[in-house]
Amino acid sequence: MSAAVQIVEPEAEVRAAMRAIGGQARAAARALANAPSERRSQALTAAARVLRERAPAILSANARDLAEGETKGLTPAFLDRLALTEGRVEAIARGLEEVAALPDPVGRVLATFSRPNGLAIERVATPLGVVGVIYESRPNVTADAGALCLKSGNAVVLRGGSDSFHSSAAIHACLVAGLREAGLPEAAISRAPSASRAAVGEMLAGLGGTLDVIVPRGGKSLVDRVQREARVPVFAHLEGIVHVYVDRGADRDKAVKILVNAKMRRTGVCGAAETLLVHRDAAPALLKPLIEALIGAGCAVRGDPAAQAADSRVTPATEEDWRTEYLDAIIAVRVVDSLEAAIDHIETFGSHHTDCIVTEDEAAAERFLKEVDSAIVLHNASTQFADGGEFGFGAEIGIATGRMHARGPVGVEQLCTFKYRVRGDGQIRP
Amino acid sequence: MSAAVQIVEPEAEVRAAMRAIGGQARAAARALANAPSERRSQALTAAARVLRERAPAILSANARDLAEGETKGLTPAFLDRLALTEGRVEAIARGLEEVAALPDPVGRVLATFSRPNGLAIERVATPLGVVGVIYESRPNVTADAGALCLKSGNAVVLRGGSDSFHSSAAIHACLVAGLREAGLPEAAISRAPSASRAAVGEMLAGLGGTLDVIVPRGGKSLVDRVQREARVPVFAHLEGIVHVYVDRGADRDKAVKILVNAKMRRTGVCGAAETLLVHRDAAPALLKPLIEALIGAGCAVRGDPAAQAADSRVTPATEEDWRTEYLDAIIAVRVVDSLEAAIDHIETFGSHHTDCIVTEDEAAAERFLKEVDSAIVLHNASTQFADGGEFGFGAEIGIATGRMHARGPVGVEQLCTFKYRVRGDGQIRP
Repeated sequence: MSAAVQIVEPEAEVRAAMRAIGGQARAAARALANAPSERRSQALTAAARVLRERAPAILSANARDLAEGETKGLTPAFLDRLALTEGRVEAIARGLEEVAALPDPVGRVLATFSRPNGLAIERVATPLGVVGVIYESRPNVTADAGALCLKSGNAVVLRGGSDSFHSSAAIHACLVAGLREAGLPEAAISRAPSASRAAVGEMLAGLGGTLDVIVPRGGKSLVDRVQREARVPVFAHLEGIVHVYVDRGADRDKAVKILVNAKMRRTGVCGAAETLLVHRDAAPALLKPLIEALIGAGCAVRGDPAAQAADSRVTPATEEDWRTEYLDAIIAVRVVDSLEAAIDHIETFGSHHTDCIVTEDEAAAERFLKEVDSAIVLHNASTQFADGGEFGFGAEIGIATGRMHARGPVGVEQLCTFKYRVRGDGQIRP
Repeated sequence: MSAAVQIVEPEAEVRAAMRAIGGQARAAARALANAPSERRSQALTAAARVLRERAPAILSANARDLAEGETKGLTPAFLDRLALTEGRVEAIARGLEEVAALPDPVGRVLATFSRPNGLAIERVATPLGVVGVIYESRPNVTADAGALCLKSGNAVVLRGGSDSFHSSAAIHACLVAGLREAGLPEAAISRAPSASRAAVGEMLAGLGGTLDVIVPRGGKSLVDRVQREARVPVFAHLEGIVHVYVDRGADRDKAVKILVNAKMRRTGVCGAAETLLVHRDAAPALLKPLIEALIGAGCAVRGDPAAQAADSRVTPATEEDWRTEYLDAIIAVRVVDSLEAAIDHIETFGSHHTDCIVTEDEAAAERFLKEVDSAIVLHNASTQFADGGEFGFGAEIGIATGRMHARGPVGVEQLCTFKYRVRGDGQIRP
């Protein structure tokens, strides 16, 4: 036999195993939908307890991942994201309990209407079915994503990054123990049994028709690949090219405070501002203090000629900067002629994620909120509020910039679909 | 130059033209979103008037399609669906007025919540963007689909069947006249300029990133192709394998009346029943009268051994029958051991479209409504109520059996997405 056969064989095995997992997850989804709903929360509470009990085992699985990662030469930043501590394990356990405590999103009556013929129609929230989650080597995602899917009545197939293989396996085992304790099928939270890339390919193909939606969690190249190749719907945001627009009606102190928070509170989150737009009429009074505040907070500033003229530390920006999600302490600054020009810039270069106007002019604010076509539009508030927790949704599995089904923070409610229940007493259609 | 080049050239031209149309539709979508909303209704009312004025021209365009269709040897049934009359043109005009009169689905506040930090958050309905509609040779779809998309603030790119090319062009011109009269961009309702199949291919590829969703309207092979090949989301239902389950707690008269209506009112609609399931305990009293009523109404009955034993006119059913959408005066009948067995049958062979239980046992009804995972589940009412109009949604662009975004009848509300508007007064995130 040739080497080619040796390569193909295990891949075919992984693919067959993944399709089998898909089938089991589909069966589990149906069992979940029919089981008493409180069992889903019980399973999460039990999983949190098991997670605490097994903290030493989880930390030693994590130590193994870290040792292998060092051997592979992973960067310190990567290893830091991978590393678990007792505190991080406790935070994961608490996260499970918080999701368990959320109101049940399944069975919510979303609308009711009665028809003249006496039919009573309800739109009721139901689980989506089977969710596939493809993520990078962050062990906590195993627990977060598993919990959100279970709470919303969905079965989930998890495929984490290969560098967190042992940590994820240990955490996954706790979730399965919770399911078992609550009398729910273990396949409700399934996990790719191998770190093989073929597992990802099979998920993108839909696991033989069993996946209803895929959620990628990770960097741009992962999300990009999933969006390009998936044959099932995807909840994803590719980029958060987030704007703060300081209108001519802006209050100076609010503008400085909101801008610095939007950019610098955490630079690596998707709601972090990447571009500052300033109305030409506001520039004389505000451009300089805004730039000084940014630089004072440790931010590098790239700008158009007006911004460069305002502060000699500003380096030139090119069009490429308007399209860049830095996820770093860098911002691009541009002076625009009008509110319309600001909206035009955002529609041209933005990513429909989160955008903010700072102004005391209500009419300008309302126009911005109406015309900017982004999942989240804010008036006089930091863009870093773009977060399911800050919206009161509890934990989120991500922020969707697509337009179908979910948009903005994807929490347990957004992981549901609905059906119509129609109650009659013998009505027929004429 | 070779023959191959002659074939490739026009296709490349069609593809380029389609992408240009996509770009114009995208620009029109933005203009629509920012125009006063009442203009959308004005455009439809004006289009209805123009349609009536131009009825003779529309009928002569239709006569041309019919003549070409006869030459091509299209079937009489096909030609009948293609044919317009003065009455049908009037019905199309009235349809436009009815859509114009619907409440505006755009800007509806779907949810509001205030956060402890004082942020006021609203979830507001917004248009989806650009909708692609691919349909067969039914001229009325040009008007129906164009109207529903416009009313919901979307731009639309229409690609109708080549056999209705001239009729669709004439109707489309009336819609464009309405847009012009209301001061809206003509590209808001765009139409593939050629009957070429390359136009469909380009739409399935997303018109260079401009289409947000595709709606196929037509037979199984069209819908199947769109679902397989589309690189953008699709609202589609492939089949309506619709069940009526007569429970052991069923009232005999209701069961007969509902079943005959569900199957025979119109056999060609997607909400028409295709399979009858009867509880074993109900079979002795009900199976024979149910089958007699069906046969008496002109329906051919195929059945399992129990059904065959109940009436000698019943022919044998095979498993293939459980999977078949007849869309004709044929039904498959099976006796099941229990409510659970009925639900199992529906989950195994159904298409998650519409299913009904007939029973006076409330507990059985609630269990059926909960556990059957279909877009529409009914208790004691005909499955032929599976229709946007019957739900009070106004006209529908189709019935979605997918689970993402829209499920069940897709009317103007389902052609919307949403965004979050967040109003603050200087809040920053700690």
